[in-house]
Amino acid sequence: MYRSHSCGELRESHINKEITLSGWVQKTRDKGFVVWIDIRDRYGITQLIFDEERTSKALIEQARSLGREFVIQVKGTVIERASKNTNIPTGNIEVLVQELKVLNQSVTPPFTIEDETDGGEDIRMKYRYLDIRRNPVKSNLIFRSKVAMEVRKYLAEAEFIEVETPYLIKSTPEGARDFVVPSRMNEGQFYALPQSPQTFKQLLMVGGMDKYFQIVKCFRDEDLRADRQPEFTQIDCEMAFVEQEDILNTFEGLTKYLLKEIKGINITSFPRMTFDDAMAKYGNDKPDIRFGMEFGELNAVAQNKEFNVFNTAELVVGIAIPGAASYTRKEIDKLVDWVRRPQVGAKGMVYVKCNEDGTYKSSVDKFYDQEDLANWAKATGAKAGDLICVLSGDTLATRTQLSALRMEMAERLGLRNPDEFAPLWVIDFPLLELDEETGNYHAMHHPFTSPKPGQLELLDTNPGAVKANAYDLVLNGNEIGGGSIRIHDKETQATMFKHLGFSEEEAKAQFGFLMDAFQYGAPPHGGIAFGLDRLVSILGGQETIRDFIAFPKNNSGRDVMIDAPAAIDDEQLKELSLKLNIKS
Amino acid sequence: MYRSHSCGELRESHINKEITLSGWVQKTRDKGFVVWIDIRDRYGITQLIFDEERTSKALIEQARSLGREFVIQVKGTVIERASKNTNIPTGNIEVLVQELKVLNQSVTPPFTIEDETDGGEDIRMKYRYLDIRRNPVKSNLIFRSKVAMEVRKYLAEAEFIEVETPYLIKSTPEGARDFVVPSRMNEGQFYALPQSPQTFKQLLMVGGMDKYFQIVKCFRDEDLRADRQPEFTQIDCEMAFVEQEDILNTFEGLTKYLLKEIKGINITSFPRMTFDDAMAKYGNDKPDIRFGMEFGELNAVAQNKEFNVFNTAELVVGIAIPGAASYTRKEIDKLVDWVRRPQVGAKGMVYVKCNEDGTYKSSVDKFYDQEDLANWAKATGAKAGDLICVLSGDTLATRTQLSALRMEMAERLGLRNPDEFAPLWVIDFPLLELDEETGNYHAMHHPFTSPKPGQLELLDTNPGAVKANAYDLVLNGNEIGGGSIRIHDKETQATMFKHLGFSEEEAKAQFGFLMDAFQYGAPPHGGIAFGLDRLVSILGGQETIRDFIAFPKNNSGRDVMIDAPAAIDDEQLKELSLKLNIKS
Repeated sequence: MYRSHSCGELRESHINKEITLSGWVQKTRDKGFVVWIDIRDRYGITQLIFDEERTSKALIEQARSLGREFVIQVKGTVIERASKNTNIPTGNIEVLVQELKVLNQSVTPPFTIEDETDGGEDIRMKYRYLDIRRNPVKSNLIFRSKVAMEVRKYLAEAEFIEVETPYLIKSTPEGARDFVVPSRMNEGQFYALPQSPQTFKQLLMVGGMDKYFQIVKCFRDEDLRADRQPEFTQIDCEMAFVEQEDILNTFEGLTKYLLKEIKGINITSFPRMTFDDAMAKYGNDKPDIRFGMEFGELNAVAQNKEFNVFNTAELVVGIAIPGAASYTRKEIDKLVDWVRRPQVGAKGMVYVKCNEDGTYKSSVDKFYDQEDLANWAKATGAKAGDLICVLSGDTLATRTQLSALRMEMAERLGLRNPDEFAPLWVIDFPLLELDEETGNYHAMHHPFTSPKPGQLELLDTNPGAVKANAYDLVLNGNEIGGGSIRIHDKETQATMFKHLGFSEEEAKAQFGFLMDAFQYGAPPHGGIAFGLDRLVSILGGQETIRDFIAFPKNNSGRDVMIDAPAAIDDEQLKELSLKLNIKS
Repeated sequence: MYRSHSCGELRESHINKEITLSGWVQKTRDKGFVVWIDIRDRYGITQLIFDEERTSKALIEQARSLGREFVIQVKGTVIERASKNTNIPTGNIEVLVQELKVLNQSVTPPFTIEDETDGGEDIRMKYRYLDIRRNPVKSNLIFRSKVAMEVRKYLAEAEFIEVETPYLIKSTPEGARDFVVPSRMNEGQFYALPQSPQTFKQLLMVGGMDKYFQIVKCFRDEDLRADRQPEFTQIDCEMAFVEQEDILNTFEGLTKYLLKEIKGINITSFPRMTFDDAMAKYGNDKPDIRFGMEFGELNAVAQNKEFNVFNTAELVVGIAIPGAASYTRKEIDKLVDWVRRPQVGAKGMVYVKCNEDGTYKSSVDKFYDQEDLANWAKATGAKAGDLICVLSGDTLATRTQLSALRMEMAERLGLRNPDEFAPLWVIDFPLLELDEETGNYHAMHHPFTSPKPGQLELLDTNPGAVKANAYDLVLNGNEIGGGSIRIHDKETQATMFKHLGFSEEEAKAQFGFLMDAFQYGAPPHGGIAFGLDRLVSILGGQETIRDFIAFPKNNSGRDVMIDAPAAIDDEQLKELSLKLNIKS
């Protein structure tokens, strides 16, 4: 054993004890007659002292020779510190060193191992093992481990069984792109890495496993947007003999348990909102309900006047930004510029200042009188001092734009408090989604989601109107989980595939095993999957998942630390019966 | 909710309660005036009763129409059973059904869903979801989940952090064959699936993470022997600032904890044995020590007589088989045939019967007198009534053959009691292993294993003699875990790569990131990895891992249920910049 205690452990109660510590040299302060060294490990920092009165000259010289990040082992005596440091748990003591051994040297690290480092993103990714030494990254990883353990405890307590499903499965052209794995033993054939264990968990339900979960890696070969990873982790769950209500209750329970255990927060309100309501009130199917600024639809009060922009719009909708009536002309112009950025895409913005004296001043005073504007204020819930921002146009696009503005303003106004948690179920999702480009419908959740009872017939006449037994769990404006009650009979599943444009042969080739399984007594079942990376980052009060992943990939899907992916041997290619076919 | 109780839950205390059950029709017994149906779910079986006096005619007819494996929901009243069944927990009650709903029908399953099924291996694999309904498979999966949870509890309690390492990493020609994953975004390049998270866990130690574990899938593209899977699960662990002793103690603790929690067994003896001793005493580096039959080396007492076979042998070695002196000539001949089978490969076998009267009768009485044979008995620990079996030849081959005989005889004599658990550390493994074919040395454990202190120099002069800080955890004759203290400085690692035949360029290209990392203050560290599939099967008292894997692959690496691997689209290949190169 290289140590008797960790570097975060020693207290006044240890004074006069002989101890051994091991760790990294965090920093050295040399006052000539005395040298202090901070030694660091996973658990904390302890101050070592070498002084001319009590330490041999050779030992002081040895201490002076240590560089940052040297790995050392020291034996010494715990003593009371002359000038205490109340900022750290070990701040009342220091260790008077009697013996010092260098366990390993270190060249100068490419960035400082401090909470606030001088290293940029790229260099820290290349030397991720050094980045992990820094508290912010280290504590995120420890936090993640804790969250995963609590999830397991809760689910095990509720009689869920963790079952490992296979990673080498079959490619299906449905959904996102699969990563594939050539099979050497089955020439010309490929496995696929799972985008999720969806079909396997359904087969476990057919197999009577009843309550399944798994914390499992999933893979999607997508062009990476910011904060997407080609491999990500899901808390994957499925239950049999349940209705939607049972699943909502079970995972509401999990969410409350996590917030209680991890954050010490008792959640009393766990609202549910239909997809339609979420879109109408927040322009978004994952609304952040930590703050208001709900949408006020203004068609009834803003149309049929002389303002043609509004008259020709499918939707006129506004939000009241609290306290923003005081914005200068310049500030408002900047806001207009902001909504007109290509990323948001609004054509323009109408505003109304709700003055403290009860009057209104708007950018469309030419067309609307005070009474009109008072109606707008009523519809948007605006109070004196607020600024009403109004967008118009096609319904979906306008809602999306106004949602972006709402989130931006909440951010600017500090309404997105990372220490506050507002979970929400969004339910009654549409079963299908129109692909604007192709004009085809595809499954909004996935092809195994069941339509609401009695709506199967609607698929032929008005597919966009069919609602699904599908639900998302939203936390602070992020979708952290989503699931559905599944189809569990062969006929419905076949109908569903047909409506998604599968030929009978394609459906059989890709999902024949599942439809076969449905013939042998498949129970009613449903489930949910949580994105662990996202869940952990939100619980941790942060927005980027990358900081909660030990070894993340960059936006080109590369691990810059190990330099992967990389070329492989010709011999390896040949064994796999493959040739490169480089586009030149 | 489709049920108020599970099918394993109802007891006499529920009598007269109105309940709802859901499950599968296990079997129907129709006595004319009364119909009994066993309804089954994950938790057990409950008997339903429909009788002419208390049940409507229509309901009885509906009950009669149910087939095996139909999924049903029943509402009814719990009543006391007239003839109780003490074999099942619900045997004192039955449910008088008032309402019956078919939730899903079932066609006739391809095999019976019973503990003893009529289905062969192949058909059960194809319909694995039905196989999982059977108690033996279901309970194995539940058992596995429980073992994994207990492992996590123990390690979390000991401050280990579970860190997820990446699955898309870099291919290295070292070791077994990698599965590779073509990268679409990085043309002509490939990821590899990890054979183990070895380098990542070492980097976590460099990163100060201190105590790491992960229950993680690993992948090896090997020609599959019986009971090997291309994907398998490891309990992967690593610790920093430890010596071998610390690791042995920690994981001895884990093993004891598991045996206590899972099997209710208190392990008091946890012996350690050097690799050399294990080979000499058991001919095997993973000896089953639940029973004796230790090897007795006979060179000193059997050579330099007139029996030339022994005189020219490198090793003469025997075991005493308890109580086998009574074997007939025919039985002994069969034993000789057994050791001469190609799978064992002995040239012949000499035997000595230790008669009850203290005399000896051997197949080599021509060359050895009673005193000689008495010495053999002493060396092998043979008692009156035992049969000494002696093999001879090259040391390693002879030991392997005698080990096979020892295991076979233990099996035949019922000495391999699956309810008894005898763990053992095998330590002081050789660092290198001679590849007989190429004449080159390769790493016995892996290239990151450190040689014993002071033995690095031996690498040049006598590489085969260098011992490593490597250890295996053996349970009942199976290696369930293995690990080592790692190299943690760049120079030693470079020396090691050189001795394994890596050029400097190769070492840098493949493991440059690790050797770089060693420059920045790598702490002393070491670890261990357990094969979870194997561990679970042994704890479950069974020999084959396949029964503890939800969806295993067959010996050609195929999942016959989903029919993977399979061909992929030309479009998909093109996107990946690949072409098939089929050998015809």
